[in-house]
Amino acid sequence: MNIPVVRTITALRAKMAAWRRESLTVALVPTMGALHAGHLVLVQEGLQRADRVVVSVFVNPTQFGPQEDFAHYPRVETLDREQLANIGASLLFAPPVTEMYPAGFATTITVTGVSEGLCGTFRPAYFTGVATVVTKLLLQSLPDMALFGEKDYQQLQVIRRLVQDLDIPVSIISVPTVREFDGLALSSRNAYLSPEERRRAMTLYQVLREVSIAVAAGVQADMATDRARVRVLDAGFNHIDYLEVRDADTLTPLKGHVRRPARVLAAAWLGRTRLIDNVPIPPRSDVSSMDSKANSA
Amino acid sequence: MNIPVVRTITALRAKMAAWRRESLTVALVPTMGALHAGHLVLVQEGLQRADRVVVSVFVNPTQFGPQEDFAHYPRVETLDREQLANIGASLLFAPPVTEMYPAGFATTITVTGVSEGLCGTFRPAYFTGVATVVTKLLLQSLPDMALFGEKDYQQLQVIRRLVQDLDIPVSIISVPTVREFDGLALSSRNAYLSPEERRRAMTLYQVLREVSIAVAAGVQADMATDRARVRVLDAGFNHIDYLEVRDADTLTPLKGHVRRPARVLAAAWLGRTRLIDNVPIPPRSDVSSMDSKANSA
Repeated sequence: MNIPVVRTITALRAKMAAWRRESLTVALVPTMGALHAGHLVLVQEGLQRADRVVVSVFVNPTQFGPQEDFAHYPRVETLDREQLANIGASLLFAPPVTEMYPAGFATTITVTGVSEGLCGTFRPAYFTGVATVVTKLLLQSLPDMALFGEKDYQQLQVIRRLVQDLDIPVSIISVPTVREFDGLALSSRNAYLSPEERRRAMTLYQVLREVSIAVAAGVQADMATDRARVRVLDAGFNHIDYLEVRDADTLTPLKGHVRRPARVLAAAWLGRTRLIDNVPIPPRSDVSSMDSKANSA
Repeated sequence: MNIPVVRTITALRAKMAAWRRESLTVALVPTMGALHAGHLVLVQEGLQRADRVVVSVFVNPTQFGPQEDFAHYPRVETLDREQLANIGASLLFAPPVTEMYPAGFATTITVTGVSEGLCGTFRPAYFTGVATVVTKLLLQSLPDMALFGEKDYQQLQVIRRLVQDLDIPVSIISVPTVREFDGLALSSRNAYLSPEERRRAMTLYQVLREVSIAVAAGVQADMATDRARVRVLDAGFNHIDYLEVRDADTLTPLKGHVRRPARVLAAAWLGRTRLIDNVPIPPRSDVSSMDSKANSA
């Protein structure tokens, strides 16, 4: 079983045009490869919603900082192709760097607001790199929809914002995070963890869930996150970049009692591996009014 | 005689989709209104190349600096509509500012290189504003082609660059500058000139042509522009923002003998009005080899 691969924008557009002539709808799943079940769920969701699913695999150099893992990021195209073929994806788009950024490339896209704080503080080039490459991928293929995981929640909000602001004619579909048996969010970077680190990694999700439940029950956001930080460090994480409650749409920081849809997001280090995760916080209306009164007293 | 007007992206897209269903090709002419013969030539060129021509009229606030003429920029929609109807344009797209920049708008496009120096030095927000709004207009309409005048030559190169870099599926067509009987480049801002200033304005083009001829004949670029600056100030211009010879494609500054396609560009003030203009410099191969040898000796 195999899946066709194109490596140029011209070849990608020829495929898209052929499908358009047949009135087929197309979904795009942009990835950096090293595909795991989280990516495959995006492909499956795409297959449910569209006639064809294109998966792009491109390890985008511009979204890595100088000290980050661009050179070592896993590249396993043969394995990726096999998995995509098995699941029924229609096409792999795997351009070389020179196809995406030919000599003279000079354009960047910046999104303020949602890209500030959280990962934006610790990876200053990241969201400009992501915004620019995702815009390029969307305009190269002009799909009906593109699918992204909620695991990279801030990235998802940045992409939603730029698609709306630049009037890119595509629907952005988000899919909940896929997790291991113990709750650890799937990530290509989990491969960096030692067995000991892997055992400890699950705590991040557990703690975020506890924050979500506590804040939904009326505990003040900053109290809940203060406690959570201690718990994460106690579990053997060596550093926390951030662990915060934010508005689910605008990512505005929230303190005190939270009365609208929110999200608790974190990035923390286990040895030399940086893990990120996030969990929704249901709005207070989901909590019984008795609880609510008890906690605001 | 009249021309249909749409004021929302949704209505614009409905028109475009209807044309697409009929397999009609569409050209876009983005303008800020106050249409003159320079704009009308763009529309005519569009009508030669495409089945339908959409003209957008939008005075884009984000490309004006705080001290610039956004509030006073001429807005004459009734007259614009009449002219567009007479010439056979298919549709006017005239969105309000809130349609282009709804609350929460947060995305900007930056082009380095070609946007640096020249107008980029004197109008720091200008090219980011232009790049962002032109991208929006192109993605709102997704035309087959878009037409721009060479009068805003640096802007044209910025747009060419971003369209290539972001993979926007549109052809950019440029059209030579349309001039008054005495050579003055048509501009909506010429309306600001007093009769006395208007008489003096023609010198800018004359001097640029002289630089072009001299440099093509082998005079060193910086010598030619030094003389030209004196001539412009002698003619009653009160200030020169820049007057430079640059590479025609990359806009890299050129000094000494010029051996590739180049452009001489200027911005200068007559009273409170800032005029810009530019003229091509043919490559040296157009000059006889005897001249060339004589000058390089």
